[in-house]
Amino acid sequence: MTFSTQNTESFAWPQPELREGLERLRRKAPLVHCITNAVVTNFTANVLLAVGASPAMVVTVEEVEEFVRIADALLVNVGTITSSDADAMLRAAEAADLNGTPWVLDPVAAGVLAYRTAIIERLVRLRPTVIRGNASEILALNGLNGGGKGVDSTISSADALPAAFELARSTKAVVALSGKVDYITDGEQVISVGGGHEIMTKVTGMGCTLGALMAAFLPVTDSPLRAAASASAIYASVGEHAEGNSRGPGSFAVEFLDRLSTIGME
Amino acid sequence: MTFSTQNTESFAWPQPELREGLERLRRKAPLVHCITNAVVTNFTANVLLAVGASPAMVVTVEEVEEFVRIADALLVNVGTITSSDADAMLRAAEAADLNGTPWVLDPVAAGVLAYRTAIIERLVRLRPTVIRGNASEILALNGLNGGGKGVDSTISSADALPAAFELARSTKAVVALSGKVDYITDGEQVISVGGGHEIMTKVTGMGCTLGALMAAFLPVTDSPLRAAASASAIYASVGEHAEGNSRGPGSFAVEFLDRLSTIGME
Amino acid sequence: MTFSTQNTESFAWPQPELREGLERLRRKAPLVHCITNAVVTNFTANVLLAVGASPAMVVTVEEVEEFVRIADALLVNVGTITSSDADAMLRAAEAADLNGTPWVLDPVAAGVLAYRTAIIERLVRLRPTVIRGNASEILALNGLNGGGKGVDSTISSADALPAAFELARSTKAVVALSGKVDYITDGEQVISVGGGHEIMTKVTGMGCTLGALMAAFLPVTDSPLRAAASASAIYASVGEHAEGNSRGPGSFAVEFLDRLSTIGME
Repeated sequence: MTFSTQNTESFAWPQPELREGLERLRRKAPLVHCITNAVVTNFTANVLLAVGASPAMVVTVEEVEEFVRIADALLVNVGTITSSDADAMLRAAEAADLNGTPWVLDPVAAGVLAYRTAIIERLVRLRPTVIRGNASEILALNGLNGGGKGVDSTISSADALPAAFELARSTKAVVALSGKVDYITDGEQVISVGGGHEIMTKVTGMGCTLGALMAAFLPVTDSPLRAAASASAIYASVGEHAEGNSRGPGSFAVEFLDRLSTIGME
Repeated sequence: MTFSTQNTESFAWPQPELREGLERLRRKAPLVHCITNAVVTNFTANVLLAVGASPAMVVTVEEVEEFVRIADALLVNVGTITSSDADAMLRAAEAADLNGTPWVLDPVAAGVLAYRTAIIERLVRLRPTVIRGNASEILALNGLNGGGKGVDSTISSADALPAAFELARSTKAVVALSGKVDYITDGEQVISVGGGHEIMTKVTGMGCTLGALMAAFLPVTDSPLRAAASASAIYASVGEHAEGNSRGPGSFAVEFLDRLSTIGME
Repeated sequence: MTFSTQNTESFAWPQPELREGLERLRRKAPLVHCITNAVVTNFTANVLLAVGASPAMVVTVEEVEEFVRIADALLVNVGTITSSDADAMLRAAEAADLNGTPWVLDPVAAGVLAYRTAIIERLVRLRPTVIRGNASEILALNGLNGGGKGVDSTISSADALPAAFELARSTKAVVALSGKVDYITDGEQVISVGGGHEIMTKVTGMGCTLGALMAAFLPVTDSPLRAAASASAIYASVGEHAEGNSRGPGSFAVEFLDRLSTIGME
C-alpha cells in the first residue's frame, strides 16, 4: 500500500455543499451524545447549541447504552479519562457500533500515557466512524512514536498525513488530522482544509469541540468523509472571522460562538 | 382535585418586591451548596457570584452532610449524574430535609433514562422545597410520559401546567415549570413569568442556573413560591436586556453575567 | 520564633524582573499538570494557554505518576475533591516530591470540612513548593481556626500574615496568602502585592487560577518565592486593566484572558 494524495480536494466556506449541510443540521437538530473531558464540557455544549444541534452529556455506565439508542451521534473524548469514564466510553461505543449510531473518537494524548492508550486501542476496535486527532495522536495510533508533549502536537499535520492515510485504511474510519491545515481522509480520498488561525491553539477545547461538530454533521451527511470535512471547513471559517473581531483568546471564544450561530444564515 | 388558574398572578421586574428580595440576597450573600452537573458548574458559580450569593460546590459523599449544615440552601441537579454523585445527592438531600435547609431539585431528563429517574424518585421523597424543570420533566415526574428528547422540552410549559399543579399538591413542593412562559405553583396559587428570549435556549445551563438562583432566594424569602418566582422574573429581565445587547450566544452569556451583577442597583 | 516583616518588599508590574519572567515562561511554555476542581478546570486551562504555558489535566490514579514525570510543574487544588481525586492527588504529589517536580497546593476550604482537611494535611507533608490560599485557609493550615465560610475569607490577608510566616517556616514551602493585598513569604522574606480589584471576587476561580499561574512560573524562576510573587503581580496588573475595560464579571473574565495574552509584549 502506498500513500498518494492524487485524490486531494480543497474545501472551504462558502461552498454550497457546506451551506446545505448546515441547513440540514439546523433542521434536524441532531441529538449528540457527548462523553467528553471535564475541561471542555461546557464549551462543547455551547458550540453544539450555537450551531443548532442538541447536546446531551450522559456519562455514567448505568445510562450510556440506553442513551446511545436515543442519540443521533456519539462523541467519545478521553481527555480527562478516569476508570469509570473508561467503562462508560467502552459501553457507549459498543452500543453505537451495534446500533449503527455514527460516532467520533477523539484520542487525546494517545501514545503519551499507557493507561489511556490501552483504552483507546479498545475503542478503535469498536469501529469509530471518525477518528479526530492531532499529528502526534494519529502517529501514535498508527503505531509510530509521535514524541508528543501532552496534548500538543510537535510535528505538522502534513508530516502525519501518510500515517492518517494508513490508519484510515486499517480501521475503515475516516481520519481527521487537525493542524495548521486539517486533512480528512478515508484512505482513498484526502480533503484538505486550510485557514485556521494560531489563536485557536490559545483557547482550550477548539480541537475537542471540532470533534463534537463532526459528530453533529454525521447524521445529516451521507458521507462521513464529507461530514468531518464540513465541520473542519466551518471551524476554519468561523475561526478566521472570530480572530478578526477579537483582541485575544477571551474575546475570540465569545466571537466564535456568536459567529457559529449565524454562519450560513446571512 | 381539579386544576384551576384562577389564582394566577403575573410577575415581572421591577416590582418593588423583586428589588427588595435582591437587596436581602446581596446583604446576606447566602451560601448555596451546589451539587450540579459537570456542564454548568462554572457558569452556575459565576451566576451566583454575579447576583451576590456565595456558591460552594461540595460534591463528595464524605463531605456533603457536613456542608449542608453550614449552607443556607442546597441545589441538586442530576444532569450528568454518576453513581457516586447519586450517593452524595441522596445524603445531601436527606441532611437538608432533616436540618430544615431549603433545597431545589432539578430533575434533568427525568423520564428519559431509567437510572436517573429512579434516583430522582428517591430525591422527590426527601421533600425538595422547589422542583424546577421543563415541561417534559415535570410531566414525567407527575407520572405521565412527556416524550422528551434528552433535556429538551417538546411540549409547551402551558400544556404541562396541570401536571405541575398536581405535582405541587402531591409533593408539597413548589413546582417551577420553565418554558417560553415560566409557571411557578404551590398547588394553590400560580405565578406566571413571561419575557424570556429564544436565545436563552442556545446557551447551555440557563435553566440549570435558574435553579441555582432559586436556591439563593429561598433563605432570604418567606415564601418558597415567591422565592422561585423572583428568580424567574429576574432571569427573564436580565435575559431580555442581555439579548438586546448581544450578537449571539457567546456575547449573550457575557452580557447576562454583567447585567445580573447590577440589576436593581441602578 | 517571632514574626517580623522587616524584610518586606513590594512588587508590581512593570518591574523588569516580571517582564523577563514572562518572556522565559513564553519561551519554555512549561507543561503544567493540573489536578484541579471541576468549577475552574476550563478557566484554568484558558488562563495557562493565554499566558503562554501548556496546561494538561490528567486526573486519574492510573496516569498521574507517569504524567508528573513528563510535566514541568504540578498544581493540586482540592476544591471539589472526591475520594478518587484524593488518591490521584496524593500519588501525584508523592511523585512530584520524589521527582523534584515543583508543585503548588491550593487547600480550598481547609479547616471547614473534616475529610478534605485530613487529605490536605497529608498533601502538606509531601512538601509542596508553594501553598496558595486565602486567610482562613492559611490560618486553618497553621493550626488555628479561621472560622471560614466555605471558600470565602472572613479575615484579611494582613491579619493572617503571621500565620503564613509560621506555616512557611514549619513546612519549608513558600506560602502565598491571597486577599486585598497578597503576601508571599518563605518564612524569611515577605513580598507584598497590592492592586487587585474587588470584581476579582465576583468571578469564580480567580484564586484557583492564580495558583495555576504560580505553578507555571516555578519551572522558569530560580526562586519559588519570586515565582509565586511574579504570578501575583501579573494577576494584579491584568486584573486592574481588565476591570477598567469591563462592565461586570462576565466581560471582566473575557478582558482578563485577552490582557493576559499580551501583557509584556507591548
